[in-house]
Amino acid sequence: MSVAIRNIPRADPTSVAELAKYGSATVHEAMGRAPGLMAPWMRPAWAGAATCGTAVTVLALPGDNWMLHVAAEMLQPGDLLVVALASPCEDGLFGELLATSYVSRGCKGLVMEAGVRDVRALTAMQFPVWSRAISARGTVKATPGSVNIPIICAGALVNPGDVIVADDDGVVVVPRAEAATIAAASAQRETKEDAVRARLAAGELGLDIYGMRENLKKAGLVWRDKSP
Amino acid sequence: MSVAIRNIPRADPTSVAELAKYGSATVHEAMGRAPGLMAPWMRPAWAGAATCGTAVTVLALPGDNWMLHVAAEMLQPGDLLVVALASPCEDGLFGELLATSYVSRGCKGLVMEAGVRDVRALTAMQFPVWSRAISARGTVKATPGSVNIPIICAGALVNPGDVIVADDDGVVVVPRAEAATIAAASAQRETKEDAVRARLAAGELGLDIYGMRENLKKAGLVWRDKSP
Amino acid sequence: MSVAIRNIPRADPTSVAELAKYGSATVHEAMGRAPGLMAPWMRPAWAGAATCGTAVTVLALPGDNWMLHVAAEMLQPGDLLVVALASPCEDGLFGELLATSYVSRGCKGLVMEAGVRDVRALTAMQFPVWSRAISARGTVKATPGSVNIPIICAGALVNPGDVIVADDDGVVVVPRAEAATIAAASAQRETKEDAVRARLAAGELGLDIYGMRENLKKAGLVWRDKSP
Amino acid sequence: MSVAIRNIPRADPTSVAELAKYGSATVHEAMGRAPGLMAPWMRPAWAGAATCGTAVTVLALPGDNWMLHVAAEMLQPGDLLVVALASPCEDGLFGELLATSYVSRGCKGLVMEAGVRDVRALTAMQFPVWSRAISARGTVKATPGSVNIPIICAGALVNPGDVIVADDDGVVVVPRAEAATIAAASAQRETKEDAVRARLAAGELGLDIYGMRENLKKAGLVWRDKSP
Amino acid sequence: MSVAIRNIPRADPTSVAELAKYGSATVHEAMGRAPGLMAPWMRPAWAGAATCGTAVTVLALPGDNWMLHVAAEMLQPGDLLVVALASPCEDGLFGELLATSYVSRGCKGLVMEAGVRDVRALTAMQFPVWSRAISARGTVKATPGSVNIPIICAGALVNPGDVIVADDDGVVVVPRAEAATIAAASAQRETKEDAVRARLAAGELGLDIYGMRENLKKAGLVWRDKSP
Amino acid sequence: MSVAIRNIPRADPTSVAELAKYGSATVHEAMGRAPGLMAPWMRPAWAGAATCGTAVTVLALPGDNWMLHVAAEMLQPGDLLVVALASPCEDGLFGELLATSYVSRGCKGLVMEAGVRDVRALTAMQFPVWSRAISARGTVKATPGSVNIPIICAGALVNPGDVIVADDDGVVVVPRAEAATIAAASAQRETKEDAVRARLAAGELGLDIYGMRENLKKAGLVWRDKSP
Repeated sequence: MSVAIRNIPRADPTSVAELAKYGSATVHEAMGRAPGLMAPWMRPAWAGAATCGTAVTVLALPGDNWMLHVAAEMLQPGDLLVVALASPCEDGLFGELLATSYVSRGCKGLVMEAGVRDVRALTAMQFPVWSRAISARGTVKATPGSVNIPIICAGALVNPGDVIVADDDGVVVVPRAEAATIAAASAQRETKEDAVRARLAAGELGLDIYGMRENLKKAGLVWRDKSP
Repeated sequence: MSVAIRNIPRADPTSVAELAKYGSATVHEAMGRAPGLMAPWMRPAWAGAATCGTAVTVLALPGDNWMLHVAAEMLQPGDLLVVALASPCEDGLFGELLATSYVSRGCKGLVMEAGVRDVRALTAMQFPVWSRAISARGTVKATPGSVNIPIICAGALVNPGDVIVADDDGVVVVPRAEAATIAAASAQRETKEDAVRARLAAGELGLDIYGMRENLKKAGLVWRDKSP
Repeated sequence: MSVAIRNIPRADPTSVAELAKYGSATVHEAMGRAPGLMAPWMRPAWAGAATCGTAVTVLALPGDNWMLHVAAEMLQPGDLLVVALASPCEDGLFGELLATSYVSRGCKGLVMEAGVRDVRALTAMQFPVWSRAISARGTVKATPGSVNIPIICAGALVNPGDVIVADDDGVVVVPRAEAATIAAASAQRETKEDAVRARLAAGELGLDIYGMRENLKKAGLVWRDKSP
Repeated sequence: MSVAIRNIPRADPTSVAELAKYGSATVHEAMGRAPGLMAPWMRPAWAGAATCGTAVTVLALPGDNWMLHVAAEMLQPGDLLVVALASPCEDGLFGELLATSYVSRGCKGLVMEAGVRDVRALTAMQFPVWSRAISARGTVKATPGSVNIPIICAGALVNPGDVIVADDDGVVVVPRAEAATIAAASAQRETKEDAVRARLAAGELGLDIYGMRENLKKAGLVWRDKSP
Repeated sequence: MSVAIRNIPRADPTSVAELAKYGSATVHEAMGRAPGLMAPWMRPAWAGAATCGTAVTVLALPGDNWMLHVAAEMLQPGDLLVVALASPCEDGLFGELLATSYVSRGCKGLVMEAGVRDVRALTAMQFPVWSRAISARGTVKATPGSVNIPIICAGALVNPGDVIVADDDGVVVVPRAEAATIAAASAQRETKEDAVRARLAAGELGLDIYGMRENLKKAGLVWRDKSP
Repeated sequence: MSVAIRNIPRADPTSVAELAKYGSATVHEAMGRAPGLMAPWMRPAWAGAATCGTAVTVLALPGDNWMLHVAAEMLQPGDLLVVALASPCEDGLFGELLATSYVSRGCKGLVMEAGVRDVRALTAMQFPVWSRAISARGTVKATPGSVNIPIICAGALVNPGDVIVADDDGVVVVPRAEAATIAAASAQRETKEDAVRARLAAGELGLDIYGMRENLKKAGLVWRDKSP
């Protein structure tokens, strides 16, 4: 059945604002590297794109972008549209016109496991987009999918209202209920990394900072002065 | 048989000049999304490349760029070289030297379903190139292919003299005989999109502008206030 | 067995400095297009990256970056780290912290057939990196591999101390013992290309400069004025 | 955190037995083509394999099959092991020895988005296996994952206790709570298809059986006697 | 525009019957290895499938198999259905029911650059099928494509009425007008190969049979007794 | 330079005969899972193929099978031809005629990272072949490569005279000098596995046989009775 859900609970704005300070790698580490990272073939349409927002989800059919219009109505400021496809598709389901519409709704970006087009215009607008491909191929509007149901996008489960953190390194999904905890863990991680970075820059080795030598030996590593 | 055809009919310059104003997505839509769009794995060698020209076609063998020299002689100002391969190949069949030669003939760019190299030089020259890969691997000059025969490049049929429109979004082939019609249709489409863009920017929804709600209901979409 | 070799012979610095003047395509041509070029899916993490250095090699396990810490200790100024994986992997085995450590050792860059992350920071640091993917996914530190053994990275054999030349066009491996010879051949090739470039720019054809017409005919190419 | 859950609710045996009568295509159609079908690159290790069972789930790390031993203890007769990987992996995580162990626990088969080996032995044992690849490459046992947590395998969400239907056409996941409903819908669908099959075999057209001509016309299809 | 053409010229039955005697490799060689061979990712759904027939062509949309019903009406005994997709698709657009319908029309097989399902039934029926994938995923019937227009399927141009020769080695397209010529060339080639096969079986070398030694030397090959 | 080496040292026949008793997975484990396993996309042309022999190596150019004729002369009974390509290629470089020639020389099979054809005939002849693809596409004979030089085939280094063990699970390369050692280790491993197999078949768990529980706990695995 095709359904479009109007009202969804969203992650609290304070946690979203906090998560927006960190990169996708930091946040994913803070999650304990649990599932929630999209596949690396999801790439930004322009270099330097980075965003964070609450997910409005779409399940669309291959070659059909009808639901991207239906979803526009559900967008609130701070939302980010996440689109999964019923089966793999690289057609250009999204371009300048929809971006214009989404921007007018306060949308923070698009993450879609299909193709996008009008890359030059999207870059000029600085509208952040992650996609599987770039393609000029247009679509039909013939078969409805759904809006705001749980979806699997690029290998990651996304529930409506989850927080999406996306940048040059990839796209990570923070479950709504864990947003505050993971924001805090991200902050902690960043602080710890700042300290390590300074020591590494000064020439200290990770081997010593993390005390790895003993464990490496136990695990079977042998150091040799020369190749035999 | 290997053949190099010297004289080909080309699309009329007025239509080519008109088509050069539009992007590949607009032109492909104006074609009614008929076949004629190359596969999305054809990517520009440098960001922002955009061009339009009449096709001189080459069928080359994998790992062999001999015909790219033969084709140079056929190039006239306003032409664009389109190269298909007898079987898939990512070797660097094209680089700075051939680009220098083509520029001296007034060539508008290269579209080739193989690899290219000297990306830094091509970028500096602003010579527009679309390819399947970037590769430093050189080639032999051992087996002739053909010049100016119909080819299939990246899934699209290209006849010598067809118009090629290429930009960040992809590469589209406009059949020579349809150049004028499709140029006109592209202009019309652009005008129509300008009007829609303004309304979308003002916050109107595509759902209302295009009157989609009724058809979505008929097609089975159900709106719900909340997830059950 | 897991082994980390401390002392390796390196290509002589004069040859390395000479090879650093040329691009990967020139150097690979100078090698007679022998094996030694990595697969074209090895791409720079940021546009314009170019480097040259002597290889310290790592064999790592999928999803495990422990050996990248072990290798840090082996790095000397002018070295470049080359990492092969025991089986294909796109996880982010390398990022800003390790880059900071490597920079402090005088490392010239990283070539790794896995994923990297912190692309924004790597770009800001201008630390040159070639990889199979970009991925925010972190790794474990559980199983040792080896350092400074012969490896096969992206289809090319790399021995510790070989010279690596990497730029926008790809990554080429110059065997340590052949560094001087190939540096000389690269210089020769560049000189020859300069002369040809000038003639091509002036409108002369490769067909005539290289005297190809006769061989093309012998190989079966037929020129025709028009398509039949 | 790595966790191994011992007791899971399983779909009721009557529904599993009923679902076992139908193929994956029939069951997926009966689900209304909702998400739940794994990607088509999941292929049987031997032609003709077909099975049905309740899912015991594993999340494993790339190149590490430790959790496949942990999961063995959780297997009950009628179960089927479903293994997701923290990141893509084609190594041979499963072979004859583990199959022998699983068979002794009454296991109905394995579905794993990684590689398997000992194909000859698996075929001889007629142990049904679906995998992403076949690979002789062995693994380490170094880092724990989890058992019986929700996983995403080959693009489909699998909860412990769900029903897995797998055959030559693919692998479908039936949510535990919907097993009875979907079993009934599958039966209905099969009955309806039997009737249609007879009419098609007798030469009647789908166009007429399903009354498609009118809708095709409305959707814009034009019949012509000859090509213009 | 969507169009279904009812009457098409077909290759003459004598040539088709003659071509049916040869394998796809022989026929493609007889064509002078001109374009006309589909990509090697087109594989038979069951081992040993081999067929030959005249093409009825379909252009379908991704995830939509409506036109496969429209095409059924156009099929005459000896025809073979060839289906191209407007964009890449691996869904199961074809299965047992359509096969039943096609068999009742005397259809010789299916070649489709998408997915098929019901592999077990197709094997039992011995209905020959070549496809890009096997997938249980069903489709919608929402958007018409076309029947009996020129299409590009798996990289090869197919015109309605062309001869399709398909077996374990691949799928080759023989242009309708060249069917007789190529059938004759195939026969000749087979005769020549029979003679060569006997000599090779007797221990003679291809080097001597084809007189290659001199040309190899001229092309630069050097024989050495031992590695230096 | 293109060179064909006539005389190569080969692994001793006793070790080859011993290695022929074991599968590729067993042998690769016996090597300590060192590099030497080809990529899993190397697949047998017919199910059940298994062979073992000493490598005669070829480096060929894409779309060119000339060197497969040159290599025929180097083949001695017990040899197996291993072919690497200068760049990726899926064309059908090998078929029935060359197989006939090789059989007459006592050749044990072919391993080639390109395409093969005449699958039906190869199956009938029971000539074992592993390849990257199956393709009817023929080749030219224009540019020499080399015979009996070290090559990298499907990611594995192969020196002339190494032992190749290939079966349904993959292709493994045993360095010539280690053939005896690895044959012995394979035998040992097989004996050990026989004992474990019996215990697993009797219902014992790998967890207990290998004593894994303690290490799993130390590594952080937590067992729970129920999902929270």
